[in-house]
Amino acid sequence: MELLPRDQIAFGRMLDTIRSAFERFGFLPVQTPVFELSDVLLTKSGGETERQVYFVQSTGALEKAADDRPELALRFDLTVPLARYVAEHEHDLVFPFRRYQMQRVYRGERAQRGRFREFYQCDIDVIGKDELSPRFDAEIPAVIAAVFDRLAIGEFTIWLNHRKLLRGYFDQLGIEDDQQFLVLRELDKLDKRGRDAVRATLTGEAFGLQSAVIDQMMAFAQVRSRGHQDALDTLAGLGQGGALFEQGRDELLAVLQQLRAMGVPESRYGINLSIARGLDYYTGVVYETTLDAHPQIGSICSGGRYENLAGYYTKSKLPGVGISIGLTRLFFQLREAGLVSTADSSVDVLVTLLEETDLDHALALSQRLRAAGLNVETQLESRKLVKQLQYADRAGIRFALIRGADEAARDVVAVKDLRRGEQYEVSEHELAASLLVEREQSKVMG
Amino acid sequence: MELLPRDQIAFGRMLDTIRSAFERFGFLPVQTPVFELSDVLLTKSGGETERQVYFVQSTGALEKAADDRPELALRFDLTVPLARYVAEHEHDLVFPFRRYQMQRVYRGERAQRGRFREFYQCDIDVIGKDELSPRFDAEIPAVIAAVFDRLAIGEFTIWLNHRKLLRGYFDQLGIEDDQQFLVLRELDKLDKRGRDAVRATLTGEAFGLQSAVIDQMMAFAQVRSRGHQDALDTLAGLGQGGALFEQGRDELLAVLQQLRAMGVPESRYGINLSIARGLDYYTGVVYETTLDAHPQIGSICSGGRYENLAGYYTKSKLPGVGISIGLTRLFFQLREAGLVSTADSSVDVLVTLLEETDLDHALALSQRLRAAGLNVETQLESRKLVKQLQYADRAGIRFALIRGADEAARDVVAVKDLRRGEQYEVSEHELAASLLVEREQSKVMG
Repeated sequence: MELLPRDQIAFGRMLDTIRSAFERFGFLPVQTPVFELSDVLLTKSGGETERQVYFVQSTGALEKAADDRPELALRFDLTVPLARYVAEHEHDLVFPFRRYQMQRVYRGERAQRGRFREFYQCDIDVIGKDELSPRFDAEIPAVIAAVFDRLAIGEFTIWLNHRKLLRGYFDQLGIEDDQQFLVLRELDKLDKRGRDAVRATLTGEAFGLQSAVIDQMMAFAQVRSRGHQDALDTLAGLGQGGALFEQGRDELLAVLQQLRAMGVPESRYGINLSIARGLDYYTGVVYETTLDAHPQIGSICSGGRYENLAGYYTKSKLPGVGISIGLTRLFFQLREAGLVSTADSSVDVLVTLLEETDLDHALALSQRLRAAGLNVETQLESRKLVKQLQYADRAGIRFALIRGADEAARDVVAVKDLRRGEQYEVSEHELAASLLVEREQSKVMG
Repeated sequence: MELLPRDQIAFGRMLDTIRSAFERFGFLPVQTPVFELSDVLLTKSGGETERQVYFVQSTGALEKAADDRPELALRFDLTVPLARYVAEHEHDLVFPFRRYQMQRVYRGERAQRGRFREFYQCDIDVIGKDELSPRFDAEIPAVIAAVFDRLAIGEFTIWLNHRKLLRGYFDQLGIEDDQQFLVLRELDKLDKRGRDAVRATLTGEAFGLQSAVIDQMMAFAQVRSRGHQDALDTLAGLGQGGALFEQGRDELLAVLQQLRAMGVPESRYGINLSIARGLDYYTGVVYETTLDAHPQIGSICSGGRYENLAGYYTKSKLPGVGISIGLTRLFFQLREAGLVSTADSSVDVLVTLLEETDLDHALALSQRLRAAGLNVETQLESRKLVKQLQYADRAGIRFALIRGADEAARDVVAVKDLRRGEQYEVSEHELAASLLVEREQSKVMG
């Protein structure tokens, strides 16, 4: 993951857009050190991830060549650092604590297509002390909607489900707590493996489920709704359930009601009863987000409600709700799908230099434009104009300013708009304002 | 280095300010992976830094327990990554290549006051192919001036010197090339060790210099000038020198002339003939920057011109000029000196909730304010107003909005300005505009 400048600009704009949406909803920035204690990371990571941790040791430590595991390792997600951060600064934070964190994480995977050893995660979480109102569960999808509206990468749907609804339903079918996890994981493979293969597994030795039960489960897992009334109807149509089931349904209904009150367009969200997500971790509402025109990309933003963030670090109970966007992977997927393209330069204006004697004027003009808020590069050496214009074009700079003897005599500057392929003259004292207006207009036009 | 949210906001604003100043001058963003090959890092780092490199290995690599040095290590500066980046992407970049990079670097030092294992560097460099006009040497101090003007941390001076001036002068005194480095290093200790101690070293066995020569050198190293004419006079007053000396002086004079043409205030720069900086690396102009009221902080931004960036990676000759700001260290020093304080929250507005039945209205109001560009947190649970106001105050949120039955009946909202300690009413449809104006005004006022 190393980008050329114009791709880096496109990536940076996505980061800025996400950050700005997070801040609109009152989330506060946190950055944590890249190092965490190895012991903690390994405890939290479980077997699969254990092999992916990067250990770190300084030259001195390496020379000691201890057989011990190195003390430090690189963070592999932003959840463990959040848990440590909240526990460590518990008495200095105001709860509910709303934080966003946008940093790189590290996984010792073999470099391969779509997998990165180092990638950006963009997370928000709201952490309560002792308790956290379910109302926060509804604010999260409103943030997701704001993020992807602003990123303007096409229509998307935020899918909602509720772990209590799932558990309640499975309880009713007589599937026990410790088996639910495994059954759900099999059901999650419906799209990939197909109905028959999944059915074979679930009727097989390991599960031994009745075919009728499997039919019910498969029907349940395939429930989708889109739009507000459809979601309400779908939830109503699930029939009567136990206490846990009803609690899950009530909370989902409350989320729907609140999303409507916030004015989130109803085309943006729906119910999807197949979503399970990190079953050992989430305990309430869970979210996934998909691009309507690109289902193959999978979920681009996921998360949910959890019972206790930091049991490992503190005796305080810290329930929370949050989501994560894996931006590096998403960026490359969007590029592949043609949904983000190489950006124009962050440089707005190239001030060309035709004669060596014009240098002082070019420098002063550049500084005036900078003071007005434009990003300006000055050609510091005179060379053929065509070379300078080629340079601007290749660098993705939109405006090239030309001031020959003729323009100088009339106190104007020729503006070459390389995007539109137009050239026009502006008086020097109106130049900054004119370029600013052009720049703002093109932002509005997208 | 882990900050509470309000300090993180202050730090983030400094990062944004620096980035925006870099972009004003047409520098392009680059981010590189945290990993570089160990062999390269150690080759480039030299003895002192070697002990500071952090090696990285995944669980799998660790288990193999090879005696070899791990293949990967964490970057310890942004220069080695720049060299590799430019060499690797040479054919895709447009030269002169102007890049900025603001990322963390890692040094395996013992954690102690003022030293960080992980800290931000903010670098700019202009890299030429085969050659790079000395005019770029003058643009760099203009960027430095823009950065520290915007950071508004007090008056500062950018000190200029030139390696050729230094070398030419030493040549004249009969001090040979390979000894100049060592002598300069001793002269650099004048402030710390005092004249007598330095003199004793230089007359001693290792150097064996004449006392008269040492006097001359010490006088030279103590030359300072401030302001434009003073700088010109100082350079003129150095007397005639050899070809190298004169070349250095000419280039310094050109830098001064260009700074004036760019309108950089002359109080911002001066000549300081004691500055040597990384003697094995820099070959032309060198820069240091100090805060006038806080000399004890030392240089807050340093750099210079170098002959060849990436000889290790490519046969192309890549001369360059650049500077680096060690922002993490600077941030803590500024905090200690009382020059940055805990920021107000990035949240502009807290929408309070007095009655449960007001929730829908509070949610809708919050969304309207967000759409207008304000950062808004909504109180999702009703509780005593005084508690909500205490929360806003503690979190550093400036505006709290209150809408009781009385306000609702009249279609107004009470705005409590916690910074000014005032409260006033605004009609709901004028609210967003009114708050935006207040926010912009306080930005202008600083």
